[in-house]
Amino acid sequence: MKIHVLGPAGSYGHEAALQAIHTLSLNEPEIVFEPTNASVLPAAERNEAIGIVPVENSTFGDVVEVLGYLAKQSPSFLLRVIAQVELSVRHCLLVPHEITSVEQLAGLTSHPQAIGQCQDSIRRWGITHIEPATSTAAAAKHVTENPDKKFGALASQFAAKEYNLTVLAENVQSQSDNTTRFFVFSPMNLNAPTGNDKSVLTFRLQNEPAALIEAIIPFATRRINISAIHSVALGAWRYGFYVEIEGHAEDGPVAKALTLMRLCTEELVVLGSFPK
Amino acid sequence: MKIHVLGPAGSYGHEAALQAIHTLSLNEPEIVFEPTNASVLPAAERNEAIGIVPVENSTFGDVVEVLGYLAKQSPSFLLRVIAQVELSVRHCLLVPHEITSVEQLAGLTSHPQAIGQCQDSIRRWGITHIEPATSTAAAAKHVTENPDKKFGALASQFAAKEYNLTVLAENVQSQSDNTTRFFVFSPMNLNAPTGNDKSVLTFRLQNEPAALIEAIIPFATRRINISAIHSVALGAWRYGFYVEIEGHAEDGPVAKALTLMRLCTEELVVLGSFPK
Repeated sequence: MKIHVLGPAGSYGHEAALQAIHTLSLNEPEIVFEPTNASVLPAAERNEAIGIVPVENSTFGDVVEVLGYLAKQSPSFLLRVIAQVELSVRHCLLVPHEITSVEQLAGLTSHPQAIGQCQDSIRRWGITHIEPATSTAAAAKHVTENPDKKFGALASQFAAKEYNLTVLAENVQSQSDNTTRFFVFSPMNLNAPTGNDKSVLTFRLQNEPAALIEAIIPFATRRINISAIHSVALGAWRYGFYVEIEGHAEDGPVAKALTLMRLCTEELVVLGSFPK
Repeated sequence: MKIHVLGPAGSYGHEAALQAIHTLSLNEPEIVFEPTNASVLPAAERNEAIGIVPVENSTFGDVVEVLGYLAKQSPSFLLRVIAQVELSVRHCLLVPHEITSVEQLAGLTSHPQAIGQCQDSIRRWGITHIEPATSTAAAAKHVTENPDKKFGALASQFAAKEYNLTVLAENVQSQSDNTTRFFVFSPMNLNAPTGNDKSVLTFRLQNEPAALIEAIIPFATRRINISAIHSVALGAWRYGFYVEIEGHAEDGPVAKALTLMRLCTEELVVLGSFPK
């Protein structure tokens, strides 16, 4: 079995994959690293494999390339969400082994989001030479491959192990409760209702006044909470919507609401229900 | 007057700024380049200056770091949207002057999104060595500064001029109608209704069933179209919402809907109304 996830090795996506393998007791799957978040699900669908993608970060909001892709799918989309993985994002300052203090560093590299999240620490360290990288794992890889540059990387403890770097400082982001939610997509979904589930759906609407309200009012009248909603402009006055609700698609009130919703939306896809 | 925008020079944001300067007849403003999209509006607010940020791309959806930032603002937020700029995103293959055909290239660099948008062309060219960059403009800059590397960059015609590169191929993205919407934020908003406007608002809700529907139903009953909606998880069971509607905040029905909405939301901020 294969699991597709954003690379390179040592990424937060890689870490989420290991967590999913453990939680779902998957048997020695092969992890395949993809170049972008947008390419993970198409690769998983092509290979009838598992794909793990981030959908929301508590600091930066939803992951548009993933939600936009999902909002465009038709009911023939092969994959279903079977689980959610929540990962604490705790950036560390990683350095080559010969560096023992921040003063020895010539500069710093990381993904611009991580640099933004660690502004306070960077200011305290007095580091002014900062080079952006395409991911935190790519930054760690760069530091390992260029030890003479005397650069540090902001990346995870997990990346430190992957690239054999020293952790000079832990938990250096300003916001302490930074988490990323990942969804585990699989060609099969056999999740039965547990009484404490969440469901994900996408649908399309013509751009007409009140069309959105008409579509979601079956949830309001049944006291079903909407925990996330995102519109995606699809051109030509059509809109895709990505919605998360509380409850399992087979729970009585949810099933009834979905039946009503199907009548006033196009291509409603219930992407999956899974325990919260 | 200063205009803050994502850099480096040659970025699509830079191009949007020049377009806004022309459309709004701004008098020789100084353009200040910021390192990330997330830092543009805080810098503009600090300097009581104009800030121009992307809010939506027709291929990749909404720009989360911007919408997330807006959804967190209180009514004391200084800036208001005074105009919208729509920019066609047409990637080109930019190369150093001594390169005259794709076969001479050793590789390619660009932002991962641009690489994704140009997959078909890249396959046709047979280029397999691809290095990600933090932005299309940064990729063009890299190619100019390292001509011996014989690399091409996927970036705009505008970036070709900025970095003195040759345009070897134009319009190489797969989707021909790729556009990005930018908002022009200013400390002053004096836009009067024109009869064909759009408005942007943000508000917060407790995470309760039907809370969202209750908040937006005043639009449905007045046939006011919602053209975009995005939830932002704010932690502790609170949600921020970013909404775009058709109409000016001073139009009778919109003004009435906003008054009703203020009663069942927290910290409703009308970020601005501007001609469509």
